[in-house]
Amino acid sequence: MLDKEIIEKMLKVANEAEDNAFIFKSNHSFGAAVLTDDGEIYGGCNVDGVISGMGTCAESSALNHAVVHGKYNIKAILVVDEKEFIFPCGTCLQYLVQFYQTTNKEIEVISAKQSGEYQSKLLHELLPEAYHSVTFDQKLKSFINK
Amino acid sequence: MLDKEIIEKMLKVANEAEDNAFIFKSNHSFGAAVLTDDGEIYGGCNVDGVISGMGTCAESSALNHAVVHGKYNIKAILVVDEKEFIFPCGTCLQYLVQFYQTTNKEIEVISAKQSGEYQSKLLHELLPEAYHSVTFDQKLKSFINK
Amino acid sequence: MLDKEIIEKMLKVANEAEDNAFIFKSNHSFGAAVLTDDGEIYGGCNVDGVISGMGTCAESSALNHAVVHGKYNIKAILVVDEKEFIFPCGTCLQYLVQFYQTTNKEIEVISAKQSGEYQSKLLHELLPEAYHSVTFDQKLKSFINK
Amino acid sequence: MLDKEIIEKMLKVANEAEDNAFIFKSNHSFGAAVLTDDGEIYGGCNVDGVISGMGTCAESSALNHAVVHGKYNIKAILVVDEKEFIFPCGTCLQYLVQFYQTTNKEIEVISAKQSGEYQSKLLHELLPEAYHSVTFDQKLKSFINK
Repeated sequence: MLDKEIIEKMLKVANEAEDNAFIFKSNHSFGAAVLTDDGEIYGGCNVDGVISGMGTCAESSALNHAVVHGKYNIKAILVVDEKEFIFPCGTCLQYLVQFYQTTNKEIEVISAKQSGEYQSKLLHELLPEAYHSVTFDQKLKSFINK
Repeated sequence: MLDKEIIEKMLKVANEAEDNAFIFKSNHSFGAAVLTDDGEIYGGCNVDGVISGMGTCAESSALNHAVVHGKYNIKAILVVDEKEFIFPCGTCLQYLVQFYQTTNKEIEVISAKQSGEYQSKLLHELLPEAYHSVTFDQKLKSFINK
Repeated sequence: MLDKEIIEKMLKVANEAEDNAFIFKSNHSFGAAVLTDDGEIYGGCNVDGVISGMGTCAESSALNHAVVHGKYNIKAILVVDEKEFIFPCGTCLQYLVQFYQTTNKEIEVISAKQSGEYQSKLLHELLPEAYHSVTFDQKLKSFINK
Repeated sequence: MLDKEIIEKMLKVANEAEDNAFIFKSNHSFGAAVLTDDGEIYGGCNVDGVISGMGTCAESSALNHAVVHGKYNIKAILVVDEKEFIFPCGTCLQYLVQFYQTTNKEIEVISAKQSGEYQSKLLHELLPEAYHSVTFDQKLKSFINK
């Protein structure tokens, strides 16, 4: 499990991202941060969609933020809510599985409150029967050395 | 219309982002860049999804990248393909409409090849009967001063 | 263009589907109907998503309804709104392109009010620079004889 | 848990739906069936998307199929794969939570092979930290009597 110092850094990035959430429908802002294998942290926030099926969660936004910088090796993800312990939704958990398949290393998933309290679980505790692609497994693994 | 110098800067960002595309299913990488009202440029690349309905286009990734930095005021978007002039898909065009509703200023959409050739159109030329939200219009507009 | 009689049949199916819309976030119900090459009509309604990126539009729901019955040969789609002429969003237009690629025949897109008034356009008028897959073109075409 | 007879009926519907899967990218067809509180069964199949983020899983397609018929009271869902036990992906599990919130009754999730073998789990075993909407809870519950 990650030590407190790095989680506090992630929380800071997630809190800053949350301030930028583009919400007009849900009235619920979220911030997230991903930690990559080389110690970089990328933030994400949620975006509502006018249209059903449009928009993104903070966690997926943070993952895409890492990808834009060429990082696919995700060690941990943190999501922050004002007052409650909230873990990533099923969609974001399944999205994380793509990154898990790249490295084959379990991903730590941290739920934090703005106050700094947090809980930590493993990706496969949260999605025990996750779908793993057999067809694309080798291609996913090829990103570890990219 | 934007002048050539700024488009070349956008193209550079889009090309760099394209190199980071997380693709394993489509074999087609895309890069994109958005230009905000204050002159900042944010890149994006596509991400395939193992699951149908998962993943993102380069253009939406670039828009979310701008949002994470608190930018909702999108002036232009550029998408680059290796050899063809490709414009954003319908989903990304509709997503752009949310940003259009924020500023009420037409968004320029540029299709570029890696060679540097480009074509330019306006968002509403590409999606002439776009859906504009009446319900959320005021909330969307509130982001202009955020 | 379709004659009035068939459009009225489509409108009836779309109106019935709209009554079943699963909405709790947008407060805006939509109904849709698709007409297949063999004269069948399938309805669809919108579903809101608690999560950003979840849920479906009425038009995509109607298309999936046709697919479940083994129909990929879409001749026309109609969307109904209570009082306004609304055309499918960019996402649904792009989704329609997959069905267009299967048959290579232009798809008629009808916007109707509950009162029965309607307007008709062609798919490529609504999405003039639609993305057409080169990679999957032959596989899409193979569904015409399925 | 459901008895074998009803599961066999669901499997039959899911197998028929699977034959209609609109796939051209993943080469992996899935079929699904949902059982509603009044004993009706609705099928669904997966649809690939040319564009990342487009397309649907069989399970979501089956749920939307039920909704079009005005059914929100989902008792169980079954997904069938040719040879493996596969459970719904995280997105479909999260989508199921919307229907769970409507009835407040646990949903049974069945993974079946075409041969007829099956395994059964509960929704919250598969997504133990699922996101439940507080904001929309009452509106979701209102669909139980619709």
